[in-house]
Amino acid sequence: MSSQDERARQQLIDLAAEFYDQFASGEVPEMTLPTRTKSNIEYDEDSGVWVYGDRTSTRSANSVQGARKLLKATYTIDFLARQLEEGRSSTLRELYYLSESWDADEAAFSSQDESNQLVEDLEIVSEVTREDFHMRPEESGATLMGPLELREQTRRGEREIHCQEDVGEGGYQIPNNPDTIDFLDHDIDFILCVETGGMRDRLVENGFDTEHNALIVHLKGQPARATRRITKRLHDELDLPVVVFTDGDPWSYRIYGSVAYGSIKSAHLSEYLATPEARFIGIQPEDIVEYDLPTDPLADSDVNALESELDDPRFMTDYWEEQIELQLDIGKKAEQQALASRGLDFVTDEYLPTRLAEMGVL
Amino acid sequence: MSSQDERARQQLIDLAAEFYDQFASGEVPEMTLPTRTKSNIEYDEDSGVWVYGDRTSTRSANSVQGARKLLKATYTIDFLARQLEEGRSSTLRELYYLSESWDADEAAFSSQDESNQLVEDLEIVSEVTREDFHMRPEESGATLMGPLELREQTRRGEREIHCQEDVGEGGYQIPNNPDTIDFLDHDIDFILCVETGGMRDRLVENGFDTEHNALIVHLKGQPARATRRITKRLHDELDLPVVVFTDGDPWSYRIYGSVAYGSIKSAHLSEYLATPEARFIGIQPEDIVEYDLPTDPLADSDVNALESELDDPRFMTDYWEEQIELQLDIGKKAEQQALASRGLDFVTDEYLPTRLAEMGVL
Repeated sequence: MSSQDERARQQLIDLAAEFYDQFASGEVPEMTLPTRTKSNIEYDEDSGVWVYGDRTSTRSANSVQGARKLLKATYTIDFLARQLEEGRSSTLRELYYLSESWDADEAAFSSQDESNQLVEDLEIVSEVTREDFHMRPEESGATLMGPLELREQTRRGEREIHCQEDVGEGGYQIPNNPDTIDFLDHDIDFILCVETGGMRDRLVENGFDTEHNALIVHLKGQPARATRRITKRLHDELDLPVVVFTDGDPWSYRIYGSVAYGSIKSAHLSEYLATPEARFIGIQPEDIVEYDLPTDPLADSDVNALESELDDPRFMTDYWEEQIELQLDIGKKAEQQALASRGLDFVTDEYLPTRLAEMGVL
Repeated sequence: MSSQDERARQQLIDLAAEFYDQFASGEVPEMTLPTRTKSNIEYDEDSGVWVYGDRTSTRSANSVQGARKLLKATYTIDFLARQLEEGRSSTLRELYYLSESWDADEAAFSSQDESNQLVEDLEIVSEVTREDFHMRPEESGATLMGPLELREQTRRGEREIHCQEDVGEGGYQIPNNPDTIDFLDHDIDFILCVETGGMRDRLVENGFDTEHNALIVHLKGQPARATRRITKRLHDELDLPVVVFTDGDPWSYRIYGSVAYGSIKSAHLSEYLATPEARFIGIQPEDIVEYDLPTDPLADSDVNALESELDDPRFMTDYWEEQIELQLDIGKKAEQQALASRGLDFVTDEYLPTRLAEMGVL
């Protein structure tokens, strides 16, 4: 076992030992967790990301339902500890199905939501990430293209890969656990995270990564944890600016938000996943007006989402209030590929260089 | 321009010339296409795939709406011909937005469905694939892992990549147009196409590709054209058996169907995309019974989909009728990861070797 695996295993065993001690001293075993709702996330000035506040919820064995939850937790801890000992890994979905094979029928999960939530609970209480438990997501990481040379530690040995010279046009596929990667060398000036595959391909075809020494990270919609993690590591370890380029609609602002500030669901991991210095490059509502982009009208669900963002602590800045209010006012949204209405090169010759200069990145 | 690009351009120009000649000889210009519905696809014995039948539909300029359709077609032909001359490419979405910049306002597409359909129409009439027009999909291709060495022709030069030794755990990312790939060398005994990322990762972790000389193709749900195309090329050029491993539900059988027989939407491309020799390995309804897998009950929509498959010419075989009727009878479906209920290694130690032996592949 690596020292990281050994530490993860120990944290899990400690948790089980705590239940044991509670039993031994005649207490009803329980597990206390931060309450995981929007009203209980708050801005942490030190780390610059949103974290859980002080409100907590308790899972106690003082009811049959609560006792069953702790039983499932101990079986899961046992499985994860053995998985770490054996140097194996599994998916969240496999854990759900595996629970059917456990000897206590009561320990089987009744839905995958339940097993997913338990793994998140264990992450929070043990302060070990799911990746360090060797739990893989279903969602796959996205791709990188740019002047970066890295070394990935795989089960089949080390691989040294240059993310322009050693990959096809599809780019380098980010592995499920990007902490298996070391950055060896680079010539990157900034990281450009891109929401859609169509725009990612446009930037690669137009050679934007070579012309501007940009590392293009394809977010593929709402980014997987692996994608957010590698973005954060690139920022922190290589000291590089990060900009996020998405569609101009409320769902895409949340994609930016999850890169920059973390999400409610994974606020316990903000310091591991979020890049608070990441900045939003567009499509901004003001771009829709300025460049007269082709648009769609806001649907009711878009309006609701924008209004709920005005109440979201992650978007409570002058910049976002102004942009969101402008968007509610014009009643329109635009996709990043709508820039093609001004020609296929407009995005790389005009739009991005202008925005990057405004933001002081270029 | 490459000779392939030159041919694609010429086919497009010929099409425009046809409209011109119709005008010149005083005819109302029109374009005739096969009718694209399920009742008009039929089995082609020579190629072993489903193709369009004899029924046709005509797009004629004898109405304002029809004339507008042909106007849009000529503008699109003009754009595609120039794109080929300049060695560039674009996405279907970019085409839709670009049409806003055309000088005839009437030529702008009113929705992306309309521009997508026109590109498909042009594929059918010109007998050139979208990839050869240099139109990229939004959907990205999936990944390969296995004993295959290939050369990809990229815009940045040639790349030689071994799909085990030169890639990370994420595998080799299939490019949008896999016809830029040459197969150099391999040690593959069979191709295993896998629906879900979780199962793909399980097979890679368990070293199934190295132990059995399997090339693992991740389908990522309903496979992109690039994924189906490379599967077909691997089968045809390297003479390798192909098996498809999906969940055990009607939607997954359609995933198998699209690999093996093509889809209604792209029946004009069956000979380019479909691998009629591809065989279904599971999850079979009989596996659900035999291995007592964890299941979910069939929803009404599942039952309807199964019943519609009984009427689908692609599934009119004794094998599929038996399996589908068994599934309707038991009223259950199972995911491929449900095999984990018998342990994480059951799929690689037991299930797949047994099925591959039954099928005569191992």
